[in-house]
Amino acid sequence: MNVKELAYQMKCDAPKMASSSNDLRNQALLKIADTLAAHKEEIFKANQEDLSRSEGKVTDAVMKRLKFNEEKLNGVIEGIHQLMTLEDPINKVLLDRELDEGLELKRVSVPIGVIGVIFEARPDALVQISTLCLKSGNCATLKGGKETASTNKVLFDLIHQSAVDAGLPEYCLTQVEAHKEIDELLTCDEYVDLLIPRGSNAFVRYIMDHTKIPVMGHSEGVCTMYIDEDADFDKIIPLVIDAKTQYTAACNACETVLISRKIAKKVLPMLKDAFDKAHVKMHGTEEVNQYIPVEIMTDFHKEYLDLEVSLKLVDNVDEAIDHINRYGSHHTDAIITENQKTAEHFMDMVDSAGVYQNASTRFADGFRYGFGAEVGISTSKIHARGPVGLDGLVTYKYKLYGHGQIVGDYASGKKSFHFKDLK
Amino acid sequence: MNVKELAYQMKCDAPKMASSSNDLRNQALLKIADTLAAHKEEIFKANQEDLSRSEGKVTDAVMKRLKFNEEKLNGVIEGIHQLMTLEDPINKVLLDRELDEGLELKRVSVPIGVIGVIFEARPDALVQISTLCLKSGNCATLKGGKETASTNKVLFDLIHQSAVDAGLPEYCLTQVEAHKEIDELLTCDEYVDLLIPRGSNAFVRYIMDHTKIPVMGHSEGVCTMYIDEDADFDKIIPLVIDAKTQYTAACNACETVLISRKIAKKVLPMLKDAFDKAHVKMHGTEEVNQYIPVEIMTDFHKEYLDLEVSLKLVDNVDEAIDHINRYGSHHTDAIITENQKTAEHFMDMVDSAGVYQNASTRFADGFRYGFGAEVGISTSKIHARGPVGLDGLVTYKYKLYGHGQIVGDYASGKKSFHFKDLK
Repeated sequence: MNVKELAYQMKCDAPKMASSSNDLRNQALLKIADTLAAHKEEIFKANQEDLSRSEGKVTDAVMKRLKFNEEKLNGVIEGIHQLMTLEDPINKVLLDRELDEGLELKRVSVPIGVIGVIFEARPDALVQISTLCLKSGNCATLKGGKETASTNKVLFDLIHQSAVDAGLPEYCLTQVEAHKEIDELLTCDEYVDLLIPRGSNAFVRYIMDHTKIPVMGHSEGVCTMYIDEDADFDKIIPLVIDAKTQYTAACNACETVLISRKIAKKVLPMLKDAFDKAHVKMHGTEEVNQYIPVEIMTDFHKEYLDLEVSLKLVDNVDEAIDHINRYGSHHTDAIITENQKTAEHFMDMVDSAGVYQNASTRFADGFRYGFGAEVGISTSKIHARGPVGLDGLVTYKYKLYGHGQIVGDYASGKKSFHFKDLK
Repeated sequence: MNVKELAYQMKCDAPKMASSSNDLRNQALLKIADTLAAHKEEIFKANQEDLSRSEGKVTDAVMKRLKFNEEKLNGVIEGIHQLMTLEDPINKVLLDRELDEGLELKRVSVPIGVIGVIFEARPDALVQISTLCLKSGNCATLKGGKETASTNKVLFDLIHQSAVDAGLPEYCLTQVEAHKEIDELLTCDEYVDLLIPRGSNAFVRYIMDHTKIPVMGHSEGVCTMYIDEDADFDKIIPLVIDAKTQYTAACNACETVLISRKIAKKVLPMLKDAFDKAHVKMHGTEEVNQYIPVEIMTDFHKEYLDLEVSLKLVDNVDEAIDHINRYGSHHTDAIITENQKTAEHFMDMVDSAGVYQNASTRFADGFRYGFGAEVGISTSKIHARGPVGLDGLVTYKYKLYGHGQIVGDYASGKKSFHFKDLK
């Protein structure tokens, strides 16, 4: 079956998923968790194949991500059990209003329908994403990174079979295996309701530019920290070093540090010491270079994803806000200040999914926000923003219960609405 | 200033709108209402110019829509006063969670930012849309139908000047006057966050296909009514005739009627009588033609927007659901039945923004849902669905208040999250 046919089958099964009970979906989750535990040797064996193929070709950090061991398996199984305890994200009555006697309107949460998720080579991501989609009553097609193809195949087959055994429809989950099939998926706008791509900027940008399907995600993460004149000097270095270095490849790592001119003389040498110790290469404006040696730069759109940072001085919080709204990627930006008024002004005016006071930008993450797993982080402003958990996988529909009411009677004035909220 | 420059200026003013108080926005609304009332002669004079230009060239129904008289002015002014009484849609704390001691996460509703609305020739629409956007703290650029260009210009100038006089930023509202400027607007994805096009299917489809800006709206409205075997026969004709004929040009008018085979022999002649009386031309399948004379047809994607209807027999509710999910436009679909179980099944399985039991599809409308005015009706599944009022014009951001917390401490296990919801 080609990708379009698979997508069509999923679209046909989507209403069955939408009308499935929370109990049934939780039973499927339990079965998945038990099956994964029971077949762990098979999973680890497949993962060993993946690891052998990549050995020596990728960095240690990447090898760590590819690896799927007992610890990671236990982690995802615990995650599934947590997911089961969460309240049903669908069938929630969000509005219940009597428009007129015997004419009741309900806004009810429902699954989005068919979701395509394209994600990086991380076997735990496959488990998290597929179970989040099932819990929220969606059908999902999954495309994982090729480096973990063998592990993905085993995991997918176990998860899919368990879901179907539990009573969910055949096409609740499908897998796209070949990279070239992604282009076919992008043309399935008739059947796929939402795409969630994760991966490199260029890849996500490519997806966004080549499909009519709505895309949720982020193509880049140019996160900025602004050190205000009212900063607590003791907080500056730990925050900046954590945001820059704790995990440089993450989209929420800090790429640019803005410093108030009023404290530049004191702060820049502090930053130089800390960055030198952490092996962070400094780029900056001519002006910064007058205080500490930096590589002169002008393009502040830069996302390094590495031990490099951009430095610039600004007059005040307003100049920092302007800089961030212009050069940032509307992901997560922070201010370091003890002045609450300045902080609130910054947090109101900066147009980003996350705006922080005295906290590392690295906190922008579904787990750290307490959402359980996340399917991705969105820098789009519509639908869902920031780390996206179950909430972002549902939409709503309006149900109207009548007794033969017609609009003509309201248009003519024979009847009139009384709009009474019932809860 | 060209459209791109205007859009850039709006993007710059958007944070000021986002941080404006509800009081200030309400003061602007009051000033707008008062100014419109004070300048009514000027408005009516401009509208007379528009009407003279169209006289004899358009139908009476269109002339009615172009006309902006005392009654319509009073209607929109009353609408503005109602809007002022609504609670502030922004700055609502949607989530307040302590992640750890001294680390507080808030999800707060914020405006979307810069919205482009392209709407039909209806002066009252300009007033409703601009005031909805201002109330929700958005900047908006407005493009109305050319038939009401003179009225639009006067209304826009009065509204814009009142908003600025009240203290809102210069570019809170802008106007796009020439039709050719729409193409320029479509390229402003860097500055415009959302487009809401209203108008003909072909026009909305054109917008959707030619921009990277997210689009909220609907290109078509193929609404269906299914007459179930358990229908109350007395309800059938009033419901079907209202849905089909009460306002044929509306997107929520019914285009297709599906009938259970079990009751075809009785229902089809009833429908024929009623449709004949209402001058509705009937199209249908060969099978329907065996009961009543119809024009044979096969393409059920058809949206007539006129006194024409498609008829088809189905075996049961499941076949009706399949038909609607396949040929409908996911707008609004209804079932006529007294069987509650069948109704719930239909309403769960039909994948549309609105699913009705024993009510006319014509109820799908922001005013009739009690939302006040609407900016449009969305058949998209993400962000907003169905009639869209203030709710659909906001998004949210995450504000994180810390005291120097770094992710390294949580990754190393030195600290751990306790996720305590504060409200």
